[in-house]
Amino acid sequence: MVLPQFYIDDIIKKAIEEDINYIDMTSDYLIADDSISKASFVAKDNGIVAGINFAMRVFELLDPNVKTEVLIPDGETVEKGEVIANISGRTRALLKGERTALNIVQHLSGIATETNKCVKLVSGTKASVTDTRKTLPGLRALQKYAVVAGGGKNHRFNLSDGAMIKDNHIDACGSITKAVETLRSKVGHMVKIEVETRNLKEVEEALTAKADIIMLDNMDTATMKKAVEMAGGRALFEASGNITHENIREVAETGVDIISLGALTHSVKCFDISMKIKKSK
Amino acid sequence: MVLPQFYIDDIIKKAIEEDINYIDMTSDYLIADDSISKASFVAKDNGIVAGINFAMRVFELLDPNVKTEVLIPDGETVEKGEVIANISGRTRALLKGERTALNIVQHLSGIATETNKCVKLVSGTKASVTDTRKTLPGLRALQKYAVVAGGGKNHRFNLSDGAMIKDNHIDACGSITKAVETLRSKVGHMVKIEVETRNLKEVEEALTAKADIIMLDNMDTATMKKAVEMAGGRALFEASGNITHENIREVAETGVDIISLGALTHSVKCFDISMKIKKSK
Amino acid sequence: MVLPQFYIDDIIKKAIEEDINYIDMTSDYLIADDSISKASFVAKDNGIVAGINFAMRVFELLDPNVKTEVLIPDGETVEKGEVIANISGRTRALLKGERTALNIVQHLSGIATETNKCVKLVSGTKASVTDTRKTLPGLRALQKYAVVAGGGKNHRFNLSDGAMIKDNHIDACGSITKAVETLRSKVGHMVKIEVETRNLKEVEEALTAKADIIMLDNMDTATMKKAVEMAGGRALFEASGNITHENIREVAETGVDIISLGALTHSVKCFDISMKIKKSK
Amino acid sequence: MVLPQFYIDDIIKKAIEEDINYIDMTSDYLIADDSISKASFVAKDNGIVAGINFAMRVFELLDPNVKTEVLIPDGETVEKGEVIANISGRTRALLKGERTALNIVQHLSGIATETNKCVKLVSGTKASVTDTRKTLPGLRALQKYAVVAGGGKNHRFNLSDGAMIKDNHIDACGSITKAVETLRSKVGHMVKIEVETRNLKEVEEALTAKADIIMLDNMDTATMKKAVEMAGGRALFEASGNITHENIREVAETGVDIISLGALTHSVKCFDISMKIKKSK
Amino acid sequence: MVLPQFYIDDIIKKAIEEDINYIDMTSDYLIADDSISKASFVAKDNGIVAGINFAMRVFELLDPNVKTEVLIPDGETVEKGEVIANISGRTRALLKGERTALNIVQHLSGIATETNKCVKLVSGTKASVTDTRKTLPGLRALQKYAVVAGGGKNHRFNLSDGAMIKDNHIDACGSITKAVETLRSKVGHMVKIEVETRNLKEVEEALTAKADIIMLDNMDTATMKKAVEMAGGRALFEASGNITHENIREVAETGVDIISLGALTHSVKCFDISMKIKKSK
Amino acid sequence: MVLPQFYIDDIIKKAIEEDINYIDMTSDYLIADDSISKASFVAKDNGIVAGINFAMRVFELLDPNVKTEVLIPDGETVEKGEVIANISGRTRALLKGERTALNIVQHLSGIATETNKCVKLVSGTKASVTDTRKTLPGLRALQKYAVVAGGGKNHRFNLSDGAMIKDNHIDACGSITKAVETLRSKVGHMVKIEVETRNLKEVEEALTAKADIIMLDNMDTATMKKAVEMAGGRALFEASGNITHENIREVAETGVDIISLGALTHSVKCFDISMKIKKSK
Repeated sequence: MVLPQFYIDDIIKKAIEEDINYIDMTSDYLIADDSISKASFVAKDNGIVAGINFAMRVFELLDPNVKTEVLIPDGETVEKGEVIANISGRTRALLKGERTALNIVQHLSGIATETNKCVKLVSGTKASVTDTRKTLPGLRALQKYAVVAGGGKNHRFNLSDGAMIKDNHIDACGSITKAVETLRSKVGHMVKIEVETRNLKEVEEALTAKADIIMLDNMDTATMKKAVEMAGGRALFEASGNITHENIREVAETGVDIISLGALTHSVKCFDISMKIKKSK
Repeated sequence: MVLPQFYIDDIIKKAIEEDINYIDMTSDYLIADDSISKASFVAKDNGIVAGINFAMRVFELLDPNVKTEVLIPDGETVEKGEVIANISGRTRALLKGERTALNIVQHLSGIATETNKCVKLVSGTKASVTDTRKTLPGLRALQKYAVVAGGGKNHRFNLSDGAMIKDNHIDACGSITKAVETLRSKVGHMVKIEVETRNLKEVEEALTAKADIIMLDNMDTATMKKAVEMAGGRALFEASGNITHENIREVAETGVDIISLGALTHSVKCFDISMKIKKSK
Repeated sequence: MVLPQFYIDDIIKKAIEEDINYIDMTSDYLIADDSISKASFVAKDNGIVAGINFAMRVFELLDPNVKTEVLIPDGETVEKGEVIANISGRTRALLKGERTALNIVQHLSGIATETNKCVKLVSGTKASVTDTRKTLPGLRALQKYAVVAGGGKNHRFNLSDGAMIKDNHIDACGSITKAVETLRSKVGHMVKIEVETRNLKEVEEALTAKADIIMLDNMDTATMKKAVEMAGGRALFEASGNITHENIREVAETGVDIISLGALTHSVKCFDISMKIKKSK
Repeated sequence: MVLPQFYIDDIIKKAIEEDINYIDMTSDYLIADDSISKASFVAKDNGIVAGINFAMRVFELLDPNVKTEVLIPDGETVEKGEVIANISGRTRALLKGERTALNIVQHLSGIATETNKCVKLVSGTKASVTDTRKTLPGLRALQKYAVVAGGGKNHRFNLSDGAMIKDNHIDACGSITKAVETLRSKVGHMVKIEVETRNLKEVEEALTAKADIIMLDNMDTATMKKAVEMAGGRALFEASGNITHENIREVAETGVDIISLGALTHSVKCFDISMKIKKSK
Repeated sequence: MVLPQFYIDDIIKKAIEEDINYIDMTSDYLIADDSISKASFVAKDNGIVAGINFAMRVFELLDPNVKTEVLIPDGETVEKGEVIANISGRTRALLKGERTALNIVQHLSGIATETNKCVKLVSGTKASVTDTRKTLPGLRALQKYAVVAGGGKNHRFNLSDGAMIKDNHIDACGSITKAVETLRSKVGHMVKIEVETRNLKEVEEALTAKADIIMLDNMDTATMKKAVEMAGGRALFEASGNITHENIREVAETGVDIISLGALTHSVKCFDISMKIKKSK
Repeated sequence: MVLPQFYIDDIIKKAIEEDINYIDMTSDYLIADDSISKASFVAKDNGIVAGINFAMRVFELLDPNVKTEVLIPDGETVEKGEVIANISGRTRALLKGERTALNIVQHLSGIATETNKCVKLVSGTKASVTDTRKTLPGLRALQKYAVVAGGGKNHRFNLSDGAMIKDNHIDACGSITKAVETLRSKVGHMVKIEVETRNLKEVEEALTAKADIIMLDNMDTATMKKAVEMAGGRALFEASGNITHENIREVAETGVDIISLGALTHSVKCFDISMKIKKSK
């Protein structure tokens, strides 16, 4: 997954403006303009790296002469104490970019690390781990990028690129069947239709209506299993709601294809990384 | 704390564009344009509300005819099951704004709720609970707003509005004394100078150099206590590093003035709120 | 299909800035500030209206006191001489907005009108008429909106919301089968996979690989027909390339599901509309 | 005519965001990151090139390491089958930029080619071929650039840089004479004043009022000729309205100075160019 | 001269963000949210008002419920002590907007007042007072608006809407004659051509080349007079360089048509206005 | 003081767009694309340079191949006739950037020069010279940068980074004491509190309330002196209002710490610099 550079740059510039606006008075007034340093980004925990290039980009945008070297790229495992990346250049640029760079890579690595834990917990089943639209304002693309870095998959990016029929839509149309039919007649051919269901009766109706995907909303695993069996491969199944480290394996073993977790992006624990500076001259 | 409306609007519009870009095909194709509904934002946990006006604004920006009513404003306590706000208007607008509105108010209420827990834990001491610059890209103002809603206070907004001397700055100048002096001679008269210290010797030097605030970085509470006593009111003290629900009271009781916590903004657990829709016609 | 108002507003403001930047000196210096007029948008041809609300919005953005009334909304048929919309308000605002408003509604109605001609030509077959990514810079959403207004459907909005495997991708993977498999293992569950084919052998391989959609690129109708028959409903078929008013019916009768036409958006003939002003005081 | 690079870049970035937002999943998941290819932009018709540098810029913005070489620059004639430009670099960047680059250069070359046909048709007369303000939203500068590439000239860019008195302005002032006088007393000395006329009586009044330019709106060629003769060089004449390939020569031979055509920019037929990719490693 | 509202709004929002970013802590923490006040904008000198509507707009953008009333509109004379405008509404909004509103109206009224002094000094001659391109970054439109409010006229807005041949251009072409000819053959018919001259020989050549306007650069008034006489009405003359209150009348009496002054916009003395607040409840 | 490059770039690009929008027709049509020139920025007066790097940046943004060399950097003294910077590159880029570059460096050098005059006038006293929030829209950071270049210091950047209690705030709270107390209990620990006073009674109350800084608003120097003596070092003092070259020394000698001058930024006389071009080939 590769986001256009200028898209990332816009987010980074905004973050730098938030943090510097307009000067770093401590560094500008205390550090000589020609002071040069080296620094390392060091993991303080075990996990998966995500966003290290974006963190490096912070320094490049502050000073094009800063040199950066990534040792552990996005998607790779890192262990406590390992160096993820090195940078060298003007001390001022290093100090000014430190906080913004860490804020980005710590948040995204936090997402990747948690995603990866879930992926490992379901390993060997056919279930994939997926994000949701429960992302933070302005950060959807970065957060979904981090989910992929952690081994997860992306649910739809937005309301334009996939159709999800929920209870309000069903009520408006009268039935699941009518809703799926109406929608199919209007959307383009590239659009898949997913239906949110709460019981096996709804699952059955969604199957008959030829939904592409059926979401099993907050069901117990026994019911999920029946739903999957009932379908016999006629649709994909997404399990959603109240899924934890404790029950995710059991959910995966029901045979569902997708397990989606809002917490991957709405309740992120940052992954601890520190930047160690060594003045060189 | 009151952010200019158009500042908030820019963040909300960006979030809507992320989520809709360009259409909500499910709602546009299944819900009649003139369908009208009511909805309520209901707390699913106990906590502090923050950002409910911003959530309401999502709907107003999607459709200026939506009516909103906030029952529990920002900064107030909410209990599980209580209605925080009601909205009514076009069903399409309600469905389109739901996710974006919840993403905002859940994140900010999560920050306010956690902040408030810490504030209560130190209640009765003179310590205030403060955020840091460890915020998410593009969300600093909103996150700091939520900290205030939770009863906390704001550390500096950015590197322009306060000076914080860290080890690299001290190295560059030769000593804490020299760093404080140099900086004082250059910054404007509205700027306070804070010095980061790691032991009592540094605290002493910072006191002598007349730092306005002294940060006690990762010290044990016994050392913190000595630092505070040593100062005899000559400076304010900020405790920082490894502060948890378990030890925050003990830290507060050392006599420090400020306890700052990165986790308030870098590791937010969202506060669970749901939007219940009731179609009216 | 309903685009967020502020998204449209950004495009309109940009267009107004192009045209006014900074003043309309003729109107500002010759027309009294309090002069009021009425005006009508009148069709000068037969066709389908698209973008009339966006055209009205031009005047509202120039002067919030202008009143607008749409008589023939987007998607409806209009005949030569019919009034599509009326506006009244400051003469200056009417004169300043005239060109920008017409430029928008003439372009979009041109797209809707041409799309509708194609839709009528295939009427009675199961083929739908679809746009492509061959849109003009900055205008994709508006152009795709106009295609829907004309009775057409939208192909994918962008490279993020659907996968289309072309020859270069196939070469990179070694075979259609390998490309579809690889992609299926990586993309989210909401994504459909379309494969571009140039002969029946490729169609067969795509069918076996379980592509969701198969594009028949520049094939003659006899070959298309064979492809459709061969599939027996296992995939959807999109016909693409060299499709004209003359042959579109024949293509539709091969049994393909989708006929996509780049010309709908890359070679638009504007639909002629004039704005007739009547000074009222 | 040379537009500032960052102005062009903003339009191109917007176009890329429309098309990629946020990833090209097919290419990102199927093409190796280090795969390198070459590609050529090949004309599929005879015409005039415009916008080839902007098309090249798409690739440079996606990947600064892409190398581009323009063989036939803007404003030059190209024949079917000729290579206009070559590019080489990452296959992913080439595939991601292809559609956006073609959309731009095909549209602009379409404008240049049609402009050039008109220019050739009036060759030998003193008439120049000119665009209008009938441009597409957001594309005015690019479209006017393409008109110049095709050998045409630009009418005013916007309402700020030239005054055009139309019937509503004349009504507001009472007479052509009064309108020209009023305007002349208010506008700066760099502004020319053009008056739109519909018959010889109005032409005469405009001449007496010393209009710099007189537009002959939808007149027959006999009347145009009389107008030009009547003027004896006291003003420039612009012919406008219902001008086609069939009658443009006849119009030019009336002695008018300018022939303006809205169709150059409002009804553009794209010029067919294809991008042929050759994987190199 | 009427600039589009949203154009002005963008400048005002930017100015508010500079000043508030993100909160006015003094007012937000000390003034009750429901406190209401009245305030008046009072002139502290004699002059010409410009930008009072833009100043009022600051408050409306901060709080749509603020009521504003302009007593002395742009372009009118104001005397020391007179009330220019009244506002009423939330005290917080009034305090937050005060500085930004004053900064705008004081700067623009300063320009209008100085322009008007010059206009009066040349009154009775045919010379008009004109601005230049010597404006401050981001403020060109506002500054040129203020010049018109003061009774002056606008020189070209930018390099796109008028041609000015300077010595470097003449050198590049070989002669004034060649430069004017070349340019005339390339620019559109709405473009006037001005030539910068430094002596009568150049004036003569410019006249022969049929320049529309001739700039007399830093000439003494005797030479200017000769230039004007020599021309016999064949061109307009612009006097430029070293023009002061002391010599402007003498320059005007040479018969030149335009006197342009960079100082109107590059060296503005602000016009003193104060905002007097009266708390009402 | 070092502003992020991309922050500066945004202001410069906006300024270029104001001036070029879209082409420099004179240069584009008269100067050959491959013409190369050298140019020098020459001071036409004695003063302090500020903004020369920003001026150089104008050319770099127009053409990355332009070479620039700064001889007299920001903050240094320049004498009439001295060369501040040299540039070489495409003649077109030099001509296109000239006006915008000069507008920036002349304005900022004007600020630095005037600031420096005031700094010299108070030299030997402990008073520093400070700017205010009386800046021009969109130019606050640049103007404050120039004040520092001239040897002055910055007052607060905006309402978020310092608290200033004025009469309306005091009225709202009942007393200075109450206002300071309330504010201290709410703002973060990095915030200093300044109180505006108009007489010695208010000074005394502010001292008792432990204001960090006391502004002496429009007081005579005798009163200022008494205020300073009364304080005995308990607070800093800022003199403000009606300070001129004539009285600034006397004010400084009262013992105040800060002298703030709105005129440094609201009434700037531009510093005269010219760009001399020498065509090289």
